[in-house]
Amino acid sequence: MANTSIPYKTYLTEQEMPRYWYNVKAHMKNKHAPFLNPATGEPCTKDDLRSVFCDECIEQEFNDRDEYVAIPQGILDFYKMFRPSPLVRAYFLERFLDTPAEIYYKFEGNNTSGSHKLNSAAAQAYYAKQQGITRLTTETGAGQWGTALSMACAFYGLQLCVYMVKASAEQKPHRREVMRTFGAEVIPSPGNTTSAGRAILARFPDTGGSLGCAISEAVETALSTQNCRYVLGSVLDHVLLHQSVIGTECKIALDKYGIVPDVVIGCMGGGSNFGGLIAPFMGERLQGKNEIRFVGVEPRGCPTLTRGKFAYDYCDAAKMTPLAKMYTLGCGFMPSPNHAGGLRYHGMSPVLSQLYHDGYIEAVAVGQKSVFEAATDFAKCEGILPAPESAHAIRAATDEALECKRSGKKKVILFGLTGTGYFDLSAYKQYNDGTMTDEAPTDEMLIKGFASIPAIR
Amino acid sequence: MANTSIPYKTYLTEQEMPRYWYNVKAHMKNKHAPFLNPATGEPCTKDDLRSVFCDECIEQEFNDRDEYVAIPQGILDFYKMFRPSPLVRAYFLERFLDTPAEIYYKFEGNNTSGSHKLNSAAAQAYYAKQQGITRLTTETGAGQWGTALSMACAFYGLQLCVYMVKASAEQKPHRREVMRTFGAEVIPSPGNTTSAGRAILARFPDTGGSLGCAISEAVETALSTQNCRYVLGSVLDHVLLHQSVIGTECKIALDKYGIVPDVVIGCMGGGSNFGGLIAPFMGERLQGKNEIRFVGVEPRGCPTLTRGKFAYDYCDAAKMTPLAKMYTLGCGFMPSPNHAGGLRYHGMSPVLSQLYHDGYIEAVAVGQKSVFEAATDFAKCEGILPAPESAHAIRAATDEALECKRSGKKKVILFGLTGTGYFDLSAYKQYNDGTMTDEAPTDEMLIKGFASIPAIR
Repeated sequence: MANTSIPYKTYLTEQEMPRYWYNVKAHMKNKHAPFLNPATGEPCTKDDLRSVFCDECIEQEFNDRDEYVAIPQGILDFYKMFRPSPLVRAYFLERFLDTPAEIYYKFEGNNTSGSHKLNSAAAQAYYAKQQGITRLTTETGAGQWGTALSMACAFYGLQLCVYMVKASAEQKPHRREVMRTFGAEVIPSPGNTTSAGRAILARFPDTGGSLGCAISEAVETALSTQNCRYVLGSVLDHVLLHQSVIGTECKIALDKYGIVPDVVIGCMGGGSNFGGLIAPFMGERLQGKNEIRFVGVEPRGCPTLTRGKFAYDYCDAAKMTPLAKMYTLGCGFMPSPNHAGGLRYHGMSPVLSQLYHDGYIEAVAVGQKSVFEAATDFAKCEGILPAPESAHAIRAATDEALECKRSGKKKVILFGLTGTGYFDLSAYKQYNDGTMTDEAPTDEMLIKGFASIPAIR
Repeated sequence: MANTSIPYKTYLTEQEMPRYWYNVKAHMKNKHAPFLNPATGEPCTKDDLRSVFCDECIEQEFNDRDEYVAIPQGILDFYKMFRPSPLVRAYFLERFLDTPAEIYYKFEGNNTSGSHKLNSAAAQAYYAKQQGITRLTTETGAGQWGTALSMACAFYGLQLCVYMVKASAEQKPHRREVMRTFGAEVIPSPGNTTSAGRAILARFPDTGGSLGCAISEAVETALSTQNCRYVLGSVLDHVLLHQSVIGTECKIALDKYGIVPDVVIGCMGGGSNFGGLIAPFMGERLQGKNEIRFVGVEPRGCPTLTRGKFAYDYCDAAKMTPLAKMYTLGCGFMPSPNHAGGLRYHGMSPVLSQLYHDGYIEAVAVGQKSVFEAATDFAKCEGILPAPESAHAIRAATDEALECKRSGKKKVILFGLTGTGYFDLSAYKQYNDGTMTDEAPTDEMLIKGFASIPAIR
């Protein structure tokens, strides 16, 4: 029965805020397969990763055991700056859709980075500082992750070098300026500062770059610089762990009102948002304590779960990273141009891939135009201009609510609203102008992508 | 004595949120002089204004009597979407400045319009809807007001036509796109849709437009369109009344902790933010119940209070609007280019002008480079990228806190952080690149401005 006594927004107090992250792996019967060292083909050891990643993140990456991982006070202090995020009851959207469903969303966009990425940036920068690291490198495509890490490095007093995909740096000079304001060095990739960049430029002088190339440059710099490490904003288990603060805050708030969602919905790129949102709810599901449905939403243009293969593959296009057992379209898959830059990844978090493989997660792929239609309706109703990535979840939540209207069922829907669209307005312009196109990969594109998956097991 | 037990952020609950606006005029012994009808030179009557403004706003404009004005439920419902705004204890800024002062700021930027402007946009759109008006017009320069009104019109189901200063529309296409996403029609001004626009274009075909011209076009369209009114986002008394929700929320939150600020600081353009922030505190001050200092901060490039005259002047450059008794640099004053577009107004709210004239308000003018220096430090400490306008208040609050460090005094400082700088990154780029200039008006510029003040009394 629809509960109309819940406030429009719920903010946890400082006392109520979670002091631990939730490690969903603790209750997974089937742990995901180990990462493989690309040089040896053998499972990665912690030592294999130490020259690239911070020690504590490696420990967390390998931790299959502890359900709760304490958040250090130094990170809690930073979380206070931009957390708690509000849990919003979407009364206005419900009214607009004329649905009997109760819709809730967790909004992670009320910080200057504009997205949930800051949750893991804070943690990774903190651990680097604790280890005596003085400098970090990373890559950024759409720019949210680079901005988040810039903020975290400014807060903890670390130097940061961001390799930003050149085409994105040129299209989004303002994103670059935010990072510079937070003190980061932003280098369009490919560039002349690394051998990886110089090699690409020699072959393709006019290239706009790629995430794969930017990763190569960032890793090379981390390996060749004193007291420097590389950090990544999605896919890996420790990133999902940090993002569990999203779901944990949600659960604490919902528990106050005695509400259990029927379905939890989130967009999926590398999986950090969705994995973090569902973590504590999935933990209970794996223990048989609830029957919640979990729905991941991906763009039809990059349908990793709905059309991909479950196989070992490289995490980057340049085949430099460890191999992960995951759903993948092939590390050589090249999606059509699509504005949800954060969802254009060929692979998927190994944790989420395993849960999907085991039937705990559903996946839907949605078309870009229908996503922007839902985004625009949402903006008018709820007053938030969503990021295109986030709007994939709005589309699916809207469809669930409309299904409730047809069936008369009063479901409780929770979705993750990962961020704002202030830097994505050229995409909104295309939608407003009626020039946006919808694309799904052709069979040929898929076949070409699958051909890039290495033949392992 | 510094109180360190206050949470980093305080959000009021729905039950605690104010249900009334605070009308500071009720306790002013010297009310401001009446507006004058530009045609007759006589005090404006309510009827003089009915063809342009909504009836309820006119009633509020003339209300010198009621200390509290109830906020209608239909506006409270909309306020829930983006309010309460957080009152933040700036622990990180305090630590960075190494000051014994307690610093608090009220952050109004956590909504898609990115500023406090939505508080009055909500009210004005609601009253228009109640009156049976179907269409509104307005002008926008920097774009915050136009965006806010677009959101409000989308919420209440009103059509909206925004005349956007052409130079701004071209420099900030993304601002324009946000308004379009909320369903507003955005017309670069001057344009061919009004006789005012056509007249300007005939004389100056290459002009980038001006706020004065955009006002003329918006008013002309309101007068010539069925069921249409014009709305304004600052200067007028009813706008300050709506913005008092900022100060009232602040005061309710501070009262919970038994805190009375020693000084309240805000940036001043037309005065809507500063007037709203100080309202309930000033009301007590006027009754002798506190000794709070009120400091308005203006850009050195447009020093209305610190270098202007207290005189009757037109509210617009085109001399079409009523005359107001206010501090003014002259309606013909043309400031040097300055990035804080929202603070480039030649005049000042008549309420605030009177309070300044009577000694209740102090004013300081600050240079642009020092403003961006404070903005950048603030962003790194507090994780919010401020609008250049808002950063004027940060500059002055920082200076107060540094003075406390020198003197050892533990003052309580409250300032208004009106909005975010996501659409002002070209200004940040200039600052980051070291190409930003600082400018104050020359004597010649001031003399030319003063010559445009009409000779009335």
